[in-house]
Amino acid sequence: MTLVGKVLVAQAGGPTAVINQSLVGAVLESRKFNQITKIYGALKGVEGIVNENFLDLTKETTNNLEKVAKTPSSALLSTRVKPDEKYCAEMFKVMQAHEIRYFFYIGGNDSADTVRIINENALRANYEMRSIHIPKTIDNDLVINDHTPGYGSAARFVAQAFSGVNLDNRAMGGVYIGVIMGRHAGFMTAASALGQKYPDDGPHLIYLPERAFNIDKFLFDVKAVYQKYGRCVIAVSEGIQDELGTPILSKLKGQLEQDHHGNVQLSGTGALGDLLAETIKDKLKISRVRSDTFGYLQRSYLGVVSDIDQQEAREVGEKAAQFALWNNIDGSIVIERTGYYSVDYRLVPLEDIAGKTKLMEDAFINESGNGVTDAFKFYLRPLLGSGFNTPHRLRAPLADKILNK
Amino acid sequence: MTLVGKVLVAQAGGPTAVINQSLVGAVLESRKFNQITKIYGALKGVEGIVNENFLDLTKETTNNLEKVAKTPSSALLSTRVKPDEKYCAEMFKVMQAHEIRYFFYIGGNDSADTVRIINENALRANYEMRSIHIPKTIDNDLVINDHTPGYGSAARFVAQAFSGVNLDNRAMGGVYIGVIMGRHAGFMTAASALGQKYPDDGPHLIYLPERAFNIDKFLFDVKAVYQKYGRCVIAVSEGIQDELGTPILSKLKGQLEQDHHGNVQLSGTGALGDLLAETIKDKLKISRVRSDTFGYLQRSYLGVVSDIDQQEAREVGEKAAQFALWNNIDGSIVIERTGYYSVDYRLVPLEDIAGKTKLMEDAFINESGNGVTDAFKFYLRPLLGSGFNTPHRLRAPLADKILNK
Repeated sequence: MTLVGKVLVAQAGGPTAVINQSLVGAVLESRKFNQITKIYGALKGVEGIVNENFLDLTKETTNNLEKVAKTPSSALLSTRVKPDEKYCAEMFKVMQAHEIRYFFYIGGNDSADTVRIINENALRANYEMRSIHIPKTIDNDLVINDHTPGYGSAARFVAQAFSGVNLDNRAMGGVYIGVIMGRHAGFMTAASALGQKYPDDGPHLIYLPERAFNIDKFLFDVKAVYQKYGRCVIAVSEGIQDELGTPILSKLKGQLEQDHHGNVQLSGTGALGDLLAETIKDKLKISRVRSDTFGYLQRSYLGVVSDIDQQEAREVGEKAAQFALWNNIDGSIVIERTGYYSVDYRLVPLEDIAGKTKLMEDAFINESGNGVTDAFKFYLRPLLGSGFNTPHRLRAPLADKILNK
Repeated sequence: MTLVGKVLVAQAGGPTAVINQSLVGAVLESRKFNQITKIYGALKGVEGIVNENFLDLTKETTNNLEKVAKTPSSALLSTRVKPDEKYCAEMFKVMQAHEIRYFFYIGGNDSADTVRIINENALRANYEMRSIHIPKTIDNDLVINDHTPGYGSAARFVAQAFSGVNLDNRAMGGVYIGVIMGRHAGFMTAASALGQKYPDDGPHLIYLPERAFNIDKFLFDVKAVYQKYGRCVIAVSEGIQDELGTPILSKLKGQLEQDHHGNVQLSGTGALGDLLAETIKDKLKISRVRSDTFGYLQRSYLGVVSDIDQQEAREVGEKAAQFALWNNIDGSIVIERTGYYSVDYRLVPLEDIAGKTKLMEDAFINESGNGVTDAFKFYLRPLLGSGFNTPHRLRAPLADKILNK
């Protein structure tokens, strides 16, 4: 039986470069079905649902939707509200009042859980409604999915950034540390490896949250690379922690307190990189040590995007509408890799995704725990998309010396 | 009379996205002249000259040179050595021994001074040699030049970054601070303004080294923007200083010491942004305040480049060879704007450029000293090149409320 009513789309959590592709995919696909009376977009995620702040996307031109699709960050804006059971019940009440029959929620594993709870509310109320979770996260940490929309573009930003800073470090010398997003999963940091082209290119060392970080081992690694190449480029996850799960930032803080007999102000985003740089200067006596924290550029930079990621983000939106409208089922869309490189999509139960975190598998991390394997590079490469830039070097021979023969 | 001998090209100082275009422009143009016996490239700038570490670029394929031209950062590598008179005399001795008759040096105002001194050495030794300074700096701070090669691409990186982080801030709320390169001239920081599209877009506030920075005025500005838009995006130059020329970083450090009764570790690059963020949190009681320091990505990011900048960087290299080989004269190449948008090049005496710093003119800075004028935006826009991305917004109307009428 055909379920007549409105579509509601919302975006959750942190922005990505392609989250609006999923929005536009769901909207444009929904428009093709006669049983859809209107298509609403909730402003500021769950907040907009509770407060009935809906844009009537039925009145958007296809042309403008296509432009918005190419714009990074959440076009429907976002919120920091984390809905609990009670909040979800309120959201459901609003959906019921507006005769929302199709709910598409674009987000990470928390969002899958929100969809799950709303689905339960609908079941309890005997209110027929299709609820679908559309995957999105630069962290690439959703289980079952081969990868998540948003990751490819963010990974491309990181890889091209490291390709560039490696050239900078090669020209200027010293040690360079880039601190990368990803509190639990190391996929973003690992993407730095795709910036390597020539065998002596950085990042020479990569530290992931999946492996316990030891400051002495770190200094040992840096010293070895510096002795070999006269320089060192390092990628560090913001989420690195020791074997007990203590974030390295707080450990280093203690260490520097002892060194300098004072309190260190740690709030703000540059702290981990700065403190690692300081430690290298102190202990290894290397004078030129620089650190950058890539920060929000990683998820919202305008103009660096993977076309593969764009297309897949569009398709998960389209598939959400198709599963709900053709098949009349709920769940979470997952991306499956079917070839090198091709994908297909299927629907899995919401509880299979909700609240679970995927970490990097062992086969992707090298034995020393300070780099990635070729298997990881092979996995990631197609996700970066076409037109990925690589550097080129001069190959001319050295000329003969005259004065210093 | 035709001056027969070798060409020597070298690259100085910090890398840019297009510095290799100038190198390749000078090399390929020099190849067309019969009086050129060989073309050398000095490895690591002045260091390579003193040590006779020359690549024989005569043996590079044109194909590879074109690929290197598109690669950011100095293909001939760089050095942190600042040559004095004695060092320049040694350099000249090596040039004479190698029968270098044409010296092309790509760099900023310090490099123009190096060329000037070497030129004087040649005159004193009665050794005929053409010495040309080829302009390069992301800081855009060379006098006489309308702008400098390297600036357009770095400005594009900054503008697109702010376009993206503005969207991020719009979706997530709070205050965002981006700290931008440029210790004396504010051109790089000012480029953030080109990330604005809609009237309420950030950066809402821009702080340049050309205007004295007052922390109370800053907090007043931030508060006003935050009250108006419920959010605030700020671009800050790393070089901001107070009316006495004291860097703000050291002032804030003092302030925080008083607050926290301890020493603050200030080395490393994230410190200024973190401290400004901390001050806003403390004084304005705004909870979500984030800061990023864009760091080295600004000058070496692989894949963000202005095509106009590429072309001009190529041409200043070509013109250097042409002035030296056709006109038999020395000097510094300068870029003149001849239309909107077109340029031409001329040669000025080295001493007109050497050691001088151009700052942003008053007409480019707003009255409050916390933003730029339309005149600046008009000046900068063509330098960003073609295919510059802009964001798009949803324009759909709000739907009627049912429960909260």
